[in-house]
Amino acid sequence: MTTQQPYLLTPGPITTTLSVKQAMLQDWGSWDGDFRAMTAELCRQLVALIEGDGSHVCVPMQGSGTFAVEATLATLVPRDGKLLILMNGAYGQRMGKIMEYLGREYVALDKGDFAPPRGEEVEAMLMADPAITHVAVVHCETSSGILNPVEEIAEVVARQERRLIIDSMSAFGAVEISARRVQFDALISSANKCFEGVPGFGFSLIRQAALEASIGNAHSLSMDLLDQWQYLMKTGQWRYTPPTHVVAAFLQALKEHAEEGGVAGRHARYQRNQQRLVSGMRQLGFETLLSDEWLSPIIITFFSPGHDNFAFQAFYDRMKARGFIIYPGKLTEAESFRLGCIGQLFDAQVDAVLAAVAEVLSEMEIPDGTPAHQIHAAATA
Amino acid sequence: MTTQQPYLLTPGPITTTLSVKQAMLQDWGSWDGDFRAMTAELCRQLVALIEGDGSHVCVPMQGSGTFAVEATLATLVPRDGKLLILMNGAYGQRMGKIMEYLGREYVALDKGDFAPPRGEEVEAMLMADPAITHVAVVHCETSSGILNPVEEIAEVVARQERRLIIDSMSAFGAVEISARRVQFDALISSANKCFEGVPGFGFSLIRQAALEASIGNAHSLSMDLLDQWQYLMKTGQWRYTPPTHVVAAFLQALKEHAEEGGVAGRHARYQRNQQRLVSGMRQLGFETLLSDEWLSPIIITFFSPGHDNFAFQAFYDRMKARGFIIYPGKLTEAESFRLGCIGQLFDAQVDAVLAAVAEVLSEMEIPDGTPAHQIHAAATA
Ligand SMILES: Cc1ncc(COP(=O)(O)O)c(C=O)c1O
Ligand SMILES: Cc1ncc(COP(=O)(O)O)c(C=O)c1O
Repeated sequence: MTTQQPYLLTPGPITTTLSVKQAMLQDWGSWDGDFRAMTAELCRQLVALIEGDGSHVCVPMQGSGTFAVEATLATLVPRDGKLLILMNGAYGQRMGKIMEYLGREYVALDKGDFAPPRGEEVEAMLMADPAITHVAVVHCETSSGILNPVEEIAEVVARQERRLIIDSMSAFGAVEISARRVQFDALISSANKCFEGVPGFGFSLIRQAALEASIGNAHSLSMDLLDQWQYLMKTGQWRYTPPTHVVAAFLQALKEHAEEGGVAGRHARYQRNQQRLVSGMRQLGFETLLSDEWLSPIIITFFSPGHDNFAFQAFYDRMKARGFIIYPGKLTEAESFRLGCIGQLFDAQVDAVLAAVAEVLSEMEIPDGTPAHQIHAAATA
Repeated sequence: MTTQQPYLLTPGPITTTLSVKQAMLQDWGSWDGDFRAMTAELCRQLVALIEGDGSHVCVPMQGSGTFAVEATLATLVPRDGKLLILMNGAYGQRMGKIMEYLGREYVALDKGDFAPPRGEEVEAMLMADPAITHVAVVHCETSSGILNPVEEIAEVVARQERRLIIDSMSAFGAVEISARRVQFDALISSANKCFEGVPGFGFSLIRQAALEASIGNAHSLSMDLLDQWQYLMKTGQWRYTPPTHVVAAFLQALKEHAEEGGVAGRHARYQRNQQRLVSGMRQLGFETLLSDEWLSPIIITFFSPGHDNFAFQAFYDRMKARGFIIYPGKLTEAESFRLGCIGQLFDAQVDAVLAAVAEVLSEMEIPDGTPAHQIHAAATA
């Protein structure tokens, strides 16, 4: 494989190291002790990262991240419970869809495409509706790139004695969170985002007491996290065939994560990528959807240039020809695209991205100083 | 990776070729056209293998094979439908568990640990209960290794105008089946068995008209095969992040499958493995659970020797030390173990397995001529 591989400027799957991919050059028996030890190690390390030893357990879940979200909601929100979903983008909305399939009650605090849910308004809703048992929030709402104020929200949820579920799919591994300082019943993430593994499973870090109390909640055999965890405790094995190679890659990715300085080290590099990308893109005339305060170190939404010569697909193809896979936007009201800051990106790649964008703009004959699309939809808070 | 890797004599994950694993040494953007083309190719080839062009479509499903089984049952059996499950082992029983989670009606024809369900008795049940809408059968019931008489069953199900769902997890790719000759609404399998890919997704080959009629059936967002398929048709993408590397490995595996002569070629090698293994093991004094007529070319159950010196874990460890990972049995009534015939196994490996078994028996001081455990539970039909 000597072909030059394009860099993925996406929110995952992302560009991983060769060593992570090479960890997949072996076959494992899923029943065998060697693989059971790998699973145990994976769980141990993930629980340690949230300082959850003694309070939280790790339940891995085959499938994509959405499977882990659905499994967590179905296992933890009782059939007669009620969930408050804090929505400000596609992934919050998806939790609503899941609840509809489950046929369980929920309400939403819907802030539209990107405005952050704030502690005060959440607290007001909880005080007004004592039937709400659980609150779900998206840590980094990847559809806009906003980093939601999870600690502020956790505080009011705890004060109102409800249970918090955090979809930290695109944040965990690069944004610090500790179960000792933030009260939550579950934090959900997956292999192929900030940990820089390859896709194939997700996991939920669940407060053990909440998991143990979840008998009879799940709607699905495959997605019953209580059953998955009990089987894991009893046998050391995943209940059904695990993606063995993906798990091996993840262990290598965890090793490299630790070597980079863990969450703090990973955060520092992604933050640096983000700042370099944002300031470079601003110099090229682009504007970010969000004000600096709300930008995550994960992914950034830029407004498309408001010029007839600009079309996303052409921009995409020209960037790809230069070795960069970018990502479409997900705003309902304005044309936009996204650039990810995660994966094996360093200064050199960020600079090359910026140079490629400049070249592509000039090829597409988009003049300097073209105002951004729908710029006045921007600015949050 | 120069360490000698143990051979997996298991029903999957199995030992794959190095070239299949090397196909994972690249990262793909799941939104990108290159990956969309890979998905389309995968689906095209799988549909062609059952001669399902024009009648059946392929719906891939993230997660393990069980997820694909649950997703298929949930999507195709209506909420007011009724399923007849033909059970003769763990995987038939698991379908019963799934139906219980779904809260949908089912009955079982339970033949115990290994006896095959026969057309006549199935037909009698269908005639006696017109409420039954669907029948589910396991193609190769991997827990015993029996190859169930799927064509005989398909015939009576079609005659009684019910719908057939086949769990062909461990058979498809090595046992010929054509949608032109056998009537079924769905055939389910996964990446990591007879196709010799790595684990991470399953798929269901579904009669398009049945899928299109399945509106509102699914109990789960993640497992809604209709929604998955409609999104795939519209965008060329999997709805949620696919296991990109596992998909790439599967495409390489499909290529190697075709090079070996497709289903017929793969079947011939596995059949040869099975015959060589069975006759070698019989020479060593072992007995198979099943009579020859019912042995599959996939996996074989052997009774454990009825001697106090024999313990499965010790046998396992000694075989592993010689480079072979074997598999425990799943019989409720007799001690047994299983040896798989699938994966990258050829005469040389089979002979080495037999030599290792002989050595281990002598190390464990199990004398020649020790009768098998519970031999009189054996013999089917
Ligand atoms: C915040 C968030 N939640 C959920 C998901 C869904 O993950 P997956 O695509 O792996 O199902 C994503 C994927 O990007 C995400 O960013
Ligand atoms: C016949 C059959 N059905 C279902 C399964 C379940 O597959 P998985 O372990 O991938 O969930 C298996 C696995 O061996 C099987 O052999």
